Amino acid sequence: MLHFDCDYMEGTHPKVLERLVATNLEQTPGYGVDEYCVSAREKIKAACEAPDAEVFFLVGGTQTNATVIDALLKPWEGVLSARTGHINTHEGGAIEAAGNKVIGLDHSQGKVAAETVRSYLETFYGDTSHEHMVQPGMLYISHPSEYGTLYTLAELEALSALCHEHGLTLYLDGARLGYGLVSAGNDVGLADLARLCDAFYIGGTKVGAAFGEAVVFRAPGLCAHFFTLMKQHGAVLAKGRLLGIQFDTLFSDGLYLEAARHAIEAAAKLKAAFLDKGYRLYIDSPTNQLFVVLDNARMGQLGKDASFEFWEALDAGHTVVRFATSWATREEDVEALIALL
Amino acid sequence: MLHFDCDYMEGTHPKVLERLVATNLEQTPGYGVDEYCVSAREKIKAACEAPDAEVFFLVGGTQTNATVIDALLKPWEGVLSARTGHINTHEGGAIEAAGNKVIGLDHSQGKVAAETVRSYLETFYGDTSHEHMVQPGMLYISHPSEYGTLYTLAELEALSALCHEHGLTLYLDGARLGYGLVSAGNDVGLADLARLCDAFYIGGTKVGAAFGEAVVFRAPGLCAHFFTLMKQHGAVLAKGRLLGIQFDTLFSDGLYLEAARHAIEAAAKLKAAFLDKGYRLYIDSPTNQLFVVLDNARMGQLGKDASFEFWEALDAGHTVVRFATSWATREEDVEALIALL
Amino acid sequence: MLHFDCDYMEGTHPKVLERLVATNLEQTPGYGVDEYCVSAREKIKAACEAPDAEVFFLVGGTQTNATVIDALLKPWEGVLSARTGHINTHEGGAIEAAGNKVIGLDHSQGKVAAETVRSYLETFYGDTSHEHMVQPGMLYISHPSEYGTLYTLAELEALSALCHEHGLTLYLDGARLGYGLVSAGNDVGLADLARLCDAFYIGGTKVGAAFGEAVVFRAPGLCAHFFTLMKQHGAVLAKGRLLGIQFDTLFSDGLYLEAARHAIEAAAKLKAAFLDKGYRLYIDSPTNQLFVVLDNARMGQLGKDASFEFWEALDAGHTVVRFATSWATREEDVEALIALL
Amino acid sequence: MLHFDCDYMEGTHPKVLERLVATNLEQTPGYGVDEYCVSAREKIKAACEAPDAEVFFLVGGTQTNATVIDALLKPWEGVLSARTGHINTHEGGAIEAAGNKVIGLDHSQGKVAAETVRSYLETFYGDTSHEHMVQPGMLYISHPSEYGTLYTLAELEALSALCHEHGLTLYLDGARLGYGLVSAGNDVGLADLARLCDAFYIGGTKVGAAFGEAVVFRAPGLCAHFFTLMKQHGAVLAKGRLLGIQFDTLFSDGLYLEAARHAIEAAAKLKAAFLDKGYRLYIDSPTNQLFVVLDNARMGQLGKDASFEFWEALDAGHTVVRFATSWATREEDVEALIALL
Repeated sequence: MLHFDCDYMEGTHPKVLERLVATNLEQTPGYGVDEYCVSAREKIKAACEAPDAEVFFLVGGTQTNATVIDALLKPWEGVLSARTGHINTHEGGAIEAAGNKVIGLDHSQGKVAAETVRSYLETFYGDTSHEHMVQPGMLYISHPSEYGTLYTLAELEALSALCHEHGLTLYLDGARLGYGLVSAGNDVGLADLARLCDAFYIGGTKVGAAFGEAVVFRAPGLCAHFFTLMKQHGAVLAKGRLLGIQFDTLFSDGLYLEAARHAIEAAAKLKAAFLDKGYRLYIDSPTNQLFVVLDNARMGQLGKDASFEFWEALDAGHTVVRFATSWATREEDVEALIALL
Repeated sequence: MLHFDCDYMEGTHPKVLERLVATNLEQTPGYGVDEYCVSAREKIKAACEAPDAEVFFLVGGTQTNATVIDALLKPWEGVLSARTGHINTHEGGAIEAAGNKVIGLDHSQGKVAAETVRSYLETFYGDTSHEHMVQPGMLYISHPSEYGTLYTLAELEALSALCHEHGLTLYLDGARLGYGLVSAGNDVGLADLARLCDAFYIGGTKVGAAFGEAVVFRAPGLCAHFFTLMKQHGAVLAKGRLLGIQFDTLFSDGLYLEAARHAIEAAAKLKAAFLDKGYRLYIDSPTNQLFVVLDNARMGQLGKDASFEFWEALDAGHTVVRFATSWATREEDVEALIALL
Repeated sequence: MLHFDCDYMEGTHPKVLERLVATNLEQTPGYGVDEYCVSAREKIKAACEAPDAEVFFLVGGTQTNATVIDALLKPWEGVLSARTGHINTHEGGAIEAAGNKVIGLDHSQGKVAAETVRSYLETFYGDTSHEHMVQPGMLYISHPSEYGTLYTLAELEALSALCHEHGLTLYLDGARLGYGLVSAGNDVGLADLARLCDAFYIGGTKVGAAFGEAVVFRAPGLCAHFFTLMKQHGAVLAKGRLLGIQFDTLFSDGLYLEAARHAIEAAAKLKAAFLDKGYRLYIDSPTNQLFVVLDNARMGQLGKDASFEFWEALDAGHTVVRFATSWATREEDVEALIALL
Repeated sequence: MLHFDCDYMEGTHPKVLERLVATNLEQTPGYGVDEYCVSAREKIKAACEAPDAEVFFLVGGTQTNATVIDALLKPWEGVLSARTGHINTHEGGAIEAAGNKVIGLDHSQGKVAAETVRSYLETFYGDTSHEHMVQPGMLYISHPSEYGTLYTLAELEALSALCHEHGLTLYLDGARLGYGLVSAGNDVGLADLARLCDAFYIGGTKVGAAFGEAVVFRAPGLCAHFFTLMKQHGAVLAKGRLLGIQFDTLFSDGLYLEAARHAIEAAAKLKAAFLDKGYRLYIDSPTNQLFVVLDNARMGQLGKDASFEFWEALDAGHTVVRFATSWATREEDVEALIALL
């Protein structure tokens, strides 16, 4: 069986694993104050060209989103998100469980346009009863989005300016950030994110780490006691160095982007094959997720030899499915899948 | 200035006031265990033909919604609602503040169709990752809806059957229930609600009381400690008898429906006048709320002598506004408004 | 039966009632923007000698505590309180339901000493793992306390200075504030509270109003959207003027203190009688609550003709009970109770 | 520097690490449905002699406590705990953040006596206003406790019977359970816990795993959607197999207890040395945590060569410190520390 279900089916990048093994019996203090975490933070701040930034390591995406959003929202505020945003659909209500409302916005292939936000804010402030409503306090976006699409730098700049003009913070979910950064046509860099977003996270779980996400706050003091809030959200790893070691390795010698590039190359090859063989792409994603329309009979047949993810029913006879590559995708599996097509 | 802004501009129905005055210096225990509350509960249960029902008195609509929803949802569940539902728009995030996600559904003039719920559930359970999502635990509807529209008995029966088939509770927000019950064409009675809904509330604030909402739970034991949960939500009135006296009076000699009828008659007269004079209704509501399209110049002029509520901008030149009548609307004000038209 | 159970057994002070009746059919906008609320706010600010203060009207004590505490705490902070504080015992977990931890402190007859707070803070900051703990963000006190005791001005000044030195806000629960202000020996005035506390509330429910509490924030902007947060807590009364009218009346011609004085005089008379007849006071309260030790046989006998509140079992043969007077206590009832003793 | 600060300074047991390395590039589905998780669950159920139990894997202790407590409490209930319980002190308010009140009880060296619980319940239900208070819904205990003390089987049986008699669930925090199970004098086994507790967790983080805790629910269906609730608490590890592999290894060939025994033997040796050299033990703990009273001068000197944890100031001249051993403690470090004493 060829597995293209998702980008987190394997453990961790061999170079990361090697480092974890080498340090296994060292003794370090817990909770992220060890030297590996210190070093990893410095490397990330350097990569972001943001010496004043604050960096924290958490274990997974949902807990990261819930904690950061809780940190930056006031209790009377809510967070704007594409209706398809991960926080609005697949996080088991984690945002709301912390008391914060997610306000769904229209989107285009997972992306929120500045115009949509502006229109929301105009309607909101134009409503004489808006003090009865949750105040818009943050915009949440994903890069790449749930549909593998990417914001341009110009789009991000427009969103950032709009948010800050209206007192909203801008938070970017980078669960698959590495894949976005090296995709064809991407013109957004880490330094741009650190400049434009109030907070964002660099996804490790899906890009070479066994687990772990690195939150970057643009400026110090955005959250006075983020560590305590992490604890409150169950997001402090006792052996915090396991996160430090992973991110320190990923941010040494360009490994994070190198690992991402591997996935993008595999995806590009696969995409060319899909198009070449006449398959229809549901969305033209430049990243490591390919959304393909299959007729249901074809889907059943292909499913005997390859696994992929059901995305949504398109019509009575067709289904949208997702093929994902990763840092670990084997060249021979790509070839074999292409042969099956 | 003629006021048609909303249905809660006056104090309380004279008969209710008279009773409050007469009992003012009586001494009763607090928190709703007094004899007036006991009597009011019995009258409401009788009116609902539901001897096993449980009845609780709360102060206002938002606190009632937040408390009942919190009582009936499990922590992993969310509540389905029309996207325009009061809980999803104008309650300051009260539902989410208690940790409960509101899941917005498409609607027609504020009403949710059984087909919409069925489709949501099919998509939900058809999604292989639905265990990562908030489980649908309740359907919230309003009768009348935010747009003054009414469910038919057949529609309610379909929703109730569908909910119970799938393990959802059905909760009906009756902030303006009285006005719905006596509207032209309404075929839903209190006994129907007590039979079809797991919980609903009979709105007092907008229908003759100074404040107060009566929650009816279909069956005993749906919530083992609802009083404690009310306390937790700040929803227990110390001098609980003030609620008991009001509802006892409203449910004596048909006062609740009589008060409602007054508003409906005034609204019908007004509606006829609007239509007669060529105004366009945005929605054809049979209840005490009329949604009228005004061109903006006309709106400005009318606004000099009458007040009404901005609802939404329709297009560059037109606005939807709401005129509301109530149990207290004066005949002469209706006449004067008609003269202005 | 003579009722001395509590201070909220009657409706509202006749002068307040008269005003509610007189204004009953007036039409005003909802939610507290009417002229009565505006006037009441000005009178309260004047009484507090605090022209910059912000005043909000809520319905009951628990909802007031939950909302104010939620407004002023950061998500990583908790509130210090006497272990016997109302928020820690009799509010159904309302504070925690909003996500805020109550940290119980030792106390003396319901009062928290500055020394106790200082010691807590020293231990807290001396603990190297204090970032794993809820940060102390507020001190909650009651005046009068749960046991009817009063802070002296010097004690309040010490607490205020200590809190502000350590970045804590000071919040005072004044459910029975009126009774405290006119008690023998009290040297604390409203202006002192407005100067020393970041927030406090002036209790109406127990001191002449039918319901209602007036929150006073020392300075503008302590909570940017308190109204929205009130909405979120279900604490906005639709017909807000009912609160405005009550407080406007209570703060006209000294009615609030006059009503309180009535209760204190009755309590003083009763206390003298208890002492005269050899009863033992559990706590020597100068306010409207008397805590008396009864032997159980005597308690049973007295209970046939008078009702009072069980407070706690003292030992096998004795019980502490509470007798409360109020603005509405009848002279003849006091005489009759004294005769029974 | 000799490190005896805590029992989570190293990575993971070499046998566990070996298995993680061996499986690193395997492809498995995420979120805990892989075969390693399945196998680990079966081994744990077998070790607990509880074929009907449900087992879930989470990442850390605080998130486990917050999620399990949230799962089993009703919204109107709170959890009883020793005042020194981890959930009441060092979890950043995680329990309250999910809306659940922790009710502190007196304790003896971290242990709660059945008599204390009984007395609490009697006082609670004897209070006529108990419906205004958070209902007691669960008892939380730790084994070993925060002070390294252990419950006897008889004590656990008494607590279990008492809880179930009064409708409380019993939940046991086993962060250091392994160390407890193999301590001298312990008469409690996994099967006892699975029989007596409604839920408990087997700590991995501190006993041989890199991270991970295994929750055991006594009976199926105690929480209908625990996975969704885990997601909501940010407690689902994407690459769930990392937890499955660790616990599968720890529960093969008795590794979990073997690893624990290593720590207990080291602790016993150290304890004997402390006593031999005239040091005073603050608490006579049979587990891997030793609480020693040091005079402050001695503490400063010892601190130059060894690290240990500050526990609390005893008096002006003495401090209680903690020395912890673990599965990874090196024999030569123990010898070296003894030499220093």
